[in-house]
Amino acid sequence: MGFPAEVRIVEVGPRDGLQNEKTDIGTAAKIELIDRLSRTGLRSIEATAFVSPKWVPQMADAAQVLAGIHRDPAIAYPVLVPNEQGYERARAAGAQEVAVFTAASEAFNLKNTNATIDQSLERFRPVLERAAADGVRVRGYVSTVLGCPYQGAVPLADVVRVSRSLHAMGCYEISLGDTIGIGTPEKARAMLKAVAAEVPMPALAIHFHDTYGQALANVLACLEQGVAVVDSAVSGAGGCPYAKGASGNVASEDVVYMLHGLGIRTGIDLDALAGTGRWLAGLLGRETGSKAGKALAAQ
Amino acid sequence: MGFPAEVRIVEVGPRDGLQNEKTDIGTAAKIELIDRLSRTGLRSIEATAFVSPKWVPQMADAAQVLAGIHRDPAIAYPVLVPNEQGYERARAAGAQEVAVFTAASEAFNLKNTNATIDQSLERFRPVLERAAADGVRVRGYVSTVLGCPYQGAVPLADVVRVSRSLHAMGCYEISLGDTIGIGTPEKARAMLKAVAAEVPMPALAIHFHDTYGQALANVLACLEQGVAVVDSAVSGAGGCPYAKGASGNVASEDVVYMLHGLGIRTGIDLDALAGTGRWLAGLLGRETGSKAGKALAAQ
Repeated sequence: MGFPAEVRIVEVGPRDGLQNEKTDIGTAAKIELIDRLSRTGLRSIEATAFVSPKWVPQMADAAQVLAGIHRDPAIAYPVLVPNEQGYERARAAGAQEVAVFTAASEAFNLKNTNATIDQSLERFRPVLERAAADGVRVRGYVSTVLGCPYQGAVPLADVVRVSRSLHAMGCYEISLGDTIGIGTPEKARAMLKAVAAEVPMPALAIHFHDTYGQALANVLACLEQGVAVVDSAVSGAGGCPYAKGASGNVASEDVVYMLHGLGIRTGIDLDALAGTGRWLAGLLGRETGSKAGKALAAQ
Repeated sequence: MGFPAEVRIVEVGPRDGLQNEKTDIGTAAKIELIDRLSRTGLRSIEATAFVSPKWVPQMADAAQVLAGIHRDPAIAYPVLVPNEQGYERARAAGAQEVAVFTAASEAFNLKNTNATIDQSLERFRPVLERAAADGVRVRGYVSTVLGCPYQGAVPLADVVRVSRSLHAMGCYEISLGDTIGIGTPEKARAMLKAVAAEVPMPALAIHFHDTYGQALANVLACLEQGVAVVDSAVSGAGGCPYAKGASGNVASEDVVYMLHGLGIRTGIDLDALAGTGRWLAGLLGRETGSKAGKALAAQ
């Protein structure tokens, strides 16, 4: 049992969440969402993505979003960039932290980015070099760490290799994503353990989707292993492009409720977070995807 | 790490689930639900309750339900009885297993049954004596084991005392219920550990509601402690009378998905179970409350 004393939540609702929602809440609401989240005690909020609007129209307003938010100097607002061009746009818009992404599954990476994993990594090299020169921190996402919708099982060795490469290239944190939410606790724990043998645990984050309802149990298993950074989305925003109608990211409120119950500090005001989740759900035209958020409202 | 090799699921959807649903699916559908569940590999299905129709109108058709189902001799169909009168009605209807219930919280028991815990236990004594003479197995439910909507915290010593009493009186299994779904993993684990010091682990079951989204994580923590019986409801049926609109029992499908992922045998056909859950959700006029059930349908 090695629970950390403190966990940092990386709130990914404004990006990973909204990118996978059918309803576009609009630029002003995105800005308000981030500003509301900034007042909950969160220290990391993934704000948007500088990706091609042709492929991801939901994020076409990335520069406006970044220009519109009230940035709290104590909070990091990473933005996703797929390549050097995205990095340039992000920097021109004032981004001070970026995130790059690749899959651990070769099949997924080819389908998703039309590049092999090695080609993706090479594409990130100049981003990481420029970021280092600019004093910009870079987060690295590794997706499909517990399974792939195309190739099925993903060898642990591939997850380890990609994680190690991103870390060696200069990513300060590697976020390990169960993109299709297919994992269960022992598999999550074994995956984290394997990666942690090559990348120091303080440089690792977990990013679990709740497609099969397993995310919080998987988070628990990984906390026991000592991970201290958890990605989640307020209101459980998002969905799964590979399973229509399925659940999205694990809900930040449910994660925070569990962490506080475990005596783990987060610095987050759960009531404020849950209120923001219900407000967002209203904009998305549905009930909050957080059970804790729903229960807190009923109290 | 002490995961059991095999877990028995006690399916409580037809009773605990439907009792707390707003929609009454009717007697014929209740019978069909139990018959469908009987074909999924489940070995324990809580069928109904012989309680006062004045207080629980949803269960007024208990005798018809029990008479209508096709009983598989390999499956136990426990029914809830609040007292000797309920026991007589249950036996007259052919029940071969019954369940009695009390809270660990004095305040909850008074509100819920108008009796102190000791009065409840005394009320069960003749039930257990007659059941022993009749060769009828009796399950014991202890509710509010991780918190009470009226008194707040519930001392572990009270949970232990009530559990020990029910076991000593002859209950073959004690189901420990987080009635308001307020617990988190370490508290669940500590509660189970305290009870298991007085009642043998093989005689214990866990019964968690998902009000705050914590149920599956709590199940995981208790499995690690060695518990091998888990109560759950197909489609996450039910709700929380103490938090309107909140989630109900942990969904059987999500529990089984996790157990199978952990390499733990259940004997259950997950696809059949998930199909039954979606069928039930249709009758209840909503989406299935099981995320695994939803994802499996989207595959």
